[in-house]
Amino acid sequence: MSADPLHALDRATRLTRHPDGSLAGATDAAYANMVGPFGGLTAAVMLNAALTHPQRLGDPIALTVNFAGPVADGPFRIEAVASRTNRSTQHWTITQTQDGAVATTATAVFAARRETWSATDTTMPEAPAADTLPRFDDTHFPPWTRQYAMRFARGGRAADPGTPDDALHSTCIVWTRDEPPRPLDFVSLASLCDTFFPRIVIRRPRRTPAGTVSLTTYFHADAAQLAAYGTRPVLGVARASRFGLGYHDQSAEIWGEDGALLATSHQIVYFKE
Amino acid sequence: MSADPLHALDRATRLTRHPDGSLAGATDAAYANMVGPFGGLTAAVMLNAALTHPQRLGDPIALTVNFAGPVADGPFRIEAVASRTNRSTQHWTITQTQDGAVATTATAVFAARRETWSATDTTMPEAPAADTLPRFDDTHFPPWTRQYAMRFARGGRAADPGTPDDALHSTCIVWTRDEPPRPLDFVSLASLCDTFFPRIVIRRPRRTPAGTVSLTTYFHADAAQLAAYGTRPVLGVARASRFGLGYHDQSAEIWGEDGALLATSHQIVYFKE
Repeated sequence: MSADPLHALDRATRLTRHPDGSLAGATDAAYANMVGPFGGLTAAVMLNAALTHPQRLGDPIALTVNFAGPVADGPFRIEAVASRTNRSTQHWTITQTQDGAVATTATAVFAARRETWSATDTTMPEAPAADTLPRFDDTHFPPWTRQYAMRFARGGRAADPGTPDDALHSTCIVWTRDEPPRPLDFVSLASLCDTFFPRIVIRRPRRTPAGTVSLTTYFHADAAQLAAYGTRPVLGVARASRFGLGYHDQSAEIWGEDGALLATSHQIVYFKE
Repeated sequence: MSADPLHALDRATRLTRHPDGSLAGATDAAYANMVGPFGGLTAAVMLNAALTHPQRLGDPIALTVNFAGPVADGPFRIEAVASRTNRSTQHWTITQTQDGAVATTATAVFAARRETWSATDTTMPEAPAADTLPRFDDTHFPPWTRQYAMRFARGGRAADPGTPDDALHSTCIVWTRDEPPRPLDFVSLASLCDTFFPRIVIRRPRRTPAGTVSLTTYFHADAAQLAAYGTRPVLGVARASRFGLGYHDQSAEIWGEDGALLATSHQIVYFKE
């Protein structure tokens, strides 16, 4: 018997198109979080609903995913509507439901990309080569963490209880790739952008329930550039700017090892106390 | 005859509720951009559609606005739907149309905010006091710029043609308030977050058409904190990270003069070449 040729990410983001245009999918145990699916996987599924649409134009440049309610283990339905298609851009409104209740909403912007002037105005963080760093031990973490090989250069673990607040900072720097390796594309990049633990966990030496409420990703590479990148790990850096009133923001950059900034991503995260 | 008691921002974001729940509004000449309305004003209008809804819960924490197509001068219609209401959060899907065509799409997340642990992990930029800086000369700029008093501490104007690329950086630091002064609230803050010129104009010594395609703002203050801030100017800092393939991102922070980080905002901007 041959091995399953489908990578777990492709299996978990697979959608079946109904005659009415709506899409059917299902949660996948490989990407389970503590409760429901890992948010990055849900973001990838929402994006895939537009990516696989027969009228899709160009490559994604922006994706916003709002985690409106819990996603139960099992089947779900997605509707992806091209709200407006222009000559070189296309705007999508995407909704995930279970039993008629909205679980996730999203918008995506696609564009026909072409060469222009280019520049990078931020600096790739310094980090040792990925293969010189130990792989993150995901033994006591939810299943989705085992679908990634993470190698932290900085900020890899939760703060020790008792550490003074002012000794901590929310920044982490980490090499990440799909496990097993899978060529980079928009689906995997959308999910990778949410693999950073909520900054409250890193920043504050005390456990509190936390979860992403809204996630926005900007893609700075086109499909050809991602395909050429192949299965190499990407370097992620994540940090927060403000914690308070039950929520904090966090921002991430995803860099290629060649110094190309592939994506920037922002989210707002709930925390209990 | 008494003066019009309504501030231009309140007039321009005013919405009338139809019996079917949809909202009617109209563009306002005071906030005109070179073509159509200023994007920040459109963001404020979209947010106001949810803010003024009778079933609205709590304060906005996240707003994403997608500029899907041009907004013509004149009336428009908005539909704001609470896609999901939880115990302490509420998710909105908001659509602006003209003659049945989608002009703008948005999602917003509202939440009941309450005191929690808080911290700020980024640094307020240094800037001279607002009243020591000259007001930006908006003589040759579109009407919306005259609804703001901007005082640049850094990066106030477009690059001079001929300046070498590597002598430039996309960052600006600017004190801004509504003109005439108006107490700060979510509507004005949503608009303020888009008052930074597209970074391509600052970064590159050559003119090119440019415009925001998608804008996401996170609010770090609650309604009471904004009301207490009053009419004082806020300090904005904006920068880009990546320009290429026809688009660039940019991120902004909005600080109170007391050092409170009020909002962080991100956008992706089209540029022609």
